[in-house]
Amino acid sequence: MSIEILGVDGDDTLWHSEGHYHVTQKRFAALLDPWVDAEAVDAALLETERRNLALFGYGVKGFTLSMIETALALTGHRIDGRRIEEIIGMGKELLAHPVELLDDVAETLGELSARHRLLLITKGDLFHQESKVAASGIGEVFEGIEIVAEKDPATYSRVLARLGVAPAAFCMVGNSIRSDIAPVLEIGGAGVHIPYHVTWALELAEIEDPHPRMARVDGFGEVPAAIADLARSA
Amino acid sequence: MSIEILGVDGDDTLWHSEGHYHVTQKRFAALLDPWVDAEAVDAALLETERRNLALFGYGVKGFTLSMIETALALTGHRIDGRRIEEIIGMGKELLAHPVELLDDVAETLGELSARHRLLLITKGDLFHQESKVAASGIGEVFEGIEIVAEKDPATYSRVLARLGVAPAAFCMVGNSIRSDIAPVLEIGGAGVHIPYHVTWALELAEIEDPHPRMARVDGFGEVPAAIADLARSA
Repeated sequence: MSIEILGVDGDDTLWHSEGHYHVTQKRFAALLDPWVDAEAVDAALLETERRNLALFGYGVKGFTLSMIETALALTGHRIDGRRIEEIIGMGKELLAHPVELLDDVAETLGELSARHRLLLITKGDLFHQESKVAASGIGEVFEGIEIVAEKDPATYSRVLARLGVAPAAFCMVGNSIRSDIAPVLEIGGAGVHIPYHVTWALELAEIEDPHPRMARVDGFGEVPAAIADLARSA
Repeated sequence: MSIEILGVDGDDTLWHSEGHYHVTQKRFAALLDPWVDAEAVDAALLETERRNLALFGYGVKGFTLSMIETALALTGHRIDGRRIEEIIGMGKELLAHPVELLDDVAETLGELSARHRLLLITKGDLFHQESKVAASGIGEVFEGIEIVAEKDPATYSRVLARLGVAPAAFCMVGNSIRSDIAPVLEIGGAGVHIPYHVTWALELAEIEDPHPRMARVDGFGEVPAAIADLARSA
C-alpha cells in the first residue's frame, strides 16, 4: 500500500483545542456555583450542546450560545447580566486564543511532506479554523486546506474524488476515532490515531482494535514510522 | 469574451437572507423598547457587529452573540434572563428559517447551466450555508459549492486557480458590490449585479458605474441576457 495523500486533522492533532474548552467549562461551572454544582453544570451543558448540534454545528460561537442557554435554564433565568457578559467574554477568549502546536508537529510535518501530498482536513467554524491555520505558521506545508461541516464517509469521498485519488492511497491522521478514523476506514482508506488527553463527550467512539489499516501512536512524532508500518503490512 | 465559469452568490441572490435579519433586528429593538429607542439599538448593534467581525466572522451565531452583547450594554446589564433567552430564540429561528428562493431563480439556473459551468460561491457560516444549499433544492445544478470566509480578490483567485480557469473566463452574479462584484472586476473577471431590496450596512459599497465588464439587472431572470450583452461588448 502506498500512501499518496496524507490527511491531517487540526484541532487536538496539530494544535491544542479541547483542552481550552475544558478550562473554559470549568470557569463556566464556577460562575454558576451559587446555583448548581459543577457536575450538574457539565451534564446540562452537554445536553444543551447535543440538542443544538443540528442547528449550530461545531465551534466556539455555538458553544458560547449553549453556555448562555444552559446558564439561563439552570438558574431559572435569575443569572445576572454581568455573568452573561462574562460568558460571552469566555467565548471571545477561546476564539482569540493563540494557536499552540502539539509536540513535534512542525518538524514531523516537514518530514512527511517530503513523502506525501499533505491535506489539512478540519471540522468546525470556517472563519475560526482559517484564522487558526493562518496563525499556526504551518499552512504552507499543505497542498490544500479542507474545512468541512461534518467528517463522514461522504465528505472524505468527495474530497478524494475532487483530487482524483483512490481511498486506498489515502491515510488520515487524527485524534478522533469518530471523525478522523472510522469514516476513512469505512471507505477503504487507512488511519493513524493519536489520542488527545481529553475528548469531547460528543466525539467519543471506539473501534474494534486492531484493524489492519489502522495504527495508534502516542504522539505526532511517531506518525512517519506508523505509516511506514501500515505500508509494509498491506 | 466567453464566460466558461459562472459564479453565483447565495444569500440575497438565490435566496432571501438579509430581509430575515432585518425583521429579527426589528423584534430585537422592540425587546429593548423599555430602555432605548429603535434607532439607538440599530446604531449600537451595528457598532458591536463591526467590532466583533474580526473575531466572529459572518453568520447568524455571531449576530446572535452581538445582539446579546448589545442588549447588556444598552440596559446597563439590567436586561432580564427571559429576554436574553428570547434573543437566543431569535437566532435559532433565523438558523431554522426555511429557504425561500428569489423570483425566477430555479428556471434561470437551468437555462444558465446549459451554457456555463456553475459554481455557488457563498460567504458565511459553513454549517448554516451547507444546510441552506441542501434545503434549497438547487444544489444539483452546480458543479461545485464554495463556502468561503471572506470574498476578496485572493479568495476568487484561489478558487479559479484550483479549477484552472483564467479570470477573463469568469463572471460572478450577486447582490453585493463589495463581495461579489468589486473583487472579481479587480482580478479581471466580469460581474452581474442584482441589487437586493435591503443591504447590511457593513456590505455597503459603490463602484464607478458604468464599468465595461459589469452589468446591473433588476432580477435573476435577466441574468442570461446580461451575460450575452457582456460577451458581445468585450
